[in-house]
Amino acid sequence: MASEELLSSWTDTATRTAIVDYVARVTGDGPDHVVPEERIATFDNDGTLWCEKPLPIQLAFILKRLAEMAEADQSLKSKQPWKAAFERDYAWLSGVMTKHYEGDDSGVTSLMGGILQAFAGQTVDEYEQAAYAFVMNGRHPTLDSTFAGCAYQPMIELLRYLEANDFTTYIASGGDRDFMRGIASEIYGLPPERVIGSTNALRYDEEADRIVYLAEPDVFDDGPVKPLRIWSRVGGRPTVAGGNSNGDIQMLNFAGGAMPALRLLILHDDADREFDYTSGAETALQRAATDGWTVVSILNDWSRVFPGSQ
Amino acid sequence: MASEELLSSWTDTATRTAIVDYVARVTGDGPDHVVPEERIATFDNDGTLWCEKPLPIQLAFILKRLAEMAEADQSLKSKQPWKAAFERDYAWLSGVMTKHYEGDDSGVTSLMGGILQAFAGQTVDEYEQAAYAFVMNGRHPTLDSTFAGCAYQPMIELLRYLEANDFTTYIASGGDRDFMRGIASEIYGLPPERVIGSTNALRYDEEADRIVYLAEPDVFDDGPVKPLRIWSRVGGRPTVAGGNSNGDIQMLNFAGGAMPALRLLILHDDADREFDYTSGAETALQRAATDGWTVVSILNDWSRVFPGSQ
Repeated sequence: MASEELLSSWTDTATRTAIVDYVARVTGDGPDHVVPEERIATFDNDGTLWCEKPLPIQLAFILKRLAEMAEADQSLKSKQPWKAAFERDYAWLSGVMTKHYEGDDSGVTSLMGGILQAFAGQTVDEYEQAAYAFVMNGRHPTLDSTFAGCAYQPMIELLRYLEANDFTTYIASGGDRDFMRGIASEIYGLPPERVIGSTNALRYDEEADRIVYLAEPDVFDDGPVKPLRIWSRVGGRPTVAGGNSNGDIQMLNFAGGAMPALRLLILHDDADREFDYTSGAETALQRAATDGWTVVSILNDWSRVFPGSQ
Repeated sequence: MASEELLSSWTDTATRTAIVDYVARVTGDGPDHVVPEERIATFDNDGTLWCEKPLPIQLAFILKRLAEMAEADQSLKSKQPWKAAFERDYAWLSGVMTKHYEGDDSGVTSLMGGILQAFAGQTVDEYEQAAYAFVMNGRHPTLDSTFAGCAYQPMIELLRYLEANDFTTYIASGGDRDFMRGIASEIYGLPPERVIGSTNALRYDEEADRIVYLAEPDVFDDGPVKPLRIWSRVGGRPTVAGGNSNGDIQMLNFAGGAMPALRLLILHDDADREFDYTSGAETALQRAATDGWTVVSILNDWSRVFPGSQ
């Protein structure tokens, strides 16, 4: 099939074969055929479509904003999460998500409080523009790249390959929907209506005719909430789902239903080209082993990791 | 433009001219050009795409279910909304929405309580199948038609006409999203991911791998909530918006922004072929008059109302 040429950054391994065989089965005339309307593919973002270490890119964006707030208001400098942001205490911040996946949400609660105050009153357009500028121009702290350049080239190819086979592709991320929307079309070729994620509460200001953020959370799109958000937006199940952490387990479990499913779990095992960690993914990796989910090894399955690399 | 032929049930009036002229402007090369990605059209459902009298079709569906519940449980027969459902007290039921638009939500609260209990525990698939069967087979109480046949032929033509001009069309209804999804592709040619509406809370049952309704409301997608729901789903503003009641004012206000907008307000003024009422639309009609929104008169602007009629 000509569309396989789209997967040029995938090494010829059993993983690539599993992907190509699955697509051949569901697009073929056999009993596993899935009609194009039901060919839905959903992908987590952080750690699945782009790099999430040493800290998620959205967290770096929030950090910058919180540090600016602490700079302007002395009283915030001794209060979390502004303290960590101002002191560039990456350990506190990267520990928040690790603790979350271990069942301790105290850090998430503190961080969320800061985030809500950081962006309350902004319009959705202002926020999107700020996020876009940050991702396109900001530099990753350790990789020699903009944040935009930290998307995984093989995953971008996989999106195009699936679309060439009449799949409709979506992001379904625990990250903030509106943070991703502006850059998703630029980086991943995904239009805003195909970005699903967490949200803060919004208010329509009828007189000024604009939508602004309230200092209230709305939905944290992770774990068992992912299938609900996908179903609410799409009106169907994914048949292909890709993730990398324990927060993706329910989405991967939800894939397929009565239809054949392809479940991909990205394994970060390449310290030289990206990062090497399984923290926050232990349960997902166990499920992959027992249930036959397809583990994608960055080390072995990808000949190239980032668009700018060889 | 050849696509105008799609509007065959529209009489050659100033309304039709306003629609065709608007589309020519935004698709043309002039200063009002709108790029295809920004050509978003959102339509209310009840009273805009299909008939809502003597009571909304979803309410008839709920009524049937509530009556069945009262039949099975004697204690419900004296309690609203089961009492009204069992006694076929249409006046109580149709008054609920009228009171809502007048600012009195006591009826909505009572009705919602019943609805939540009526469907709690059902899976989303069971509910969609029941709704589909009801709409396709159920008979409208006064029009000689199935409920499915109560869609407005000129509005179906308008959807196709807009799509032929690279608009992406959506339903944005105060009605229940999941009630409409199953029938939207059949009746309106709109896939499930382009149906926006009210929702009840959902839960993902991981072990059984299914999504079920909780006895909790989630979002009532009406009035100032409509712009938020549209923006959350689409990631942009509509440039074309169509409604028929006070609950559509904010959506119509939200249309356009910096882009040229077409705002359509359906006026029910044809007692012979459909219904004649302005109840619940008084403020919207005033806004149309002062702000130059395009009022669509069923009597004067449509040569045919329903697909099955002449």
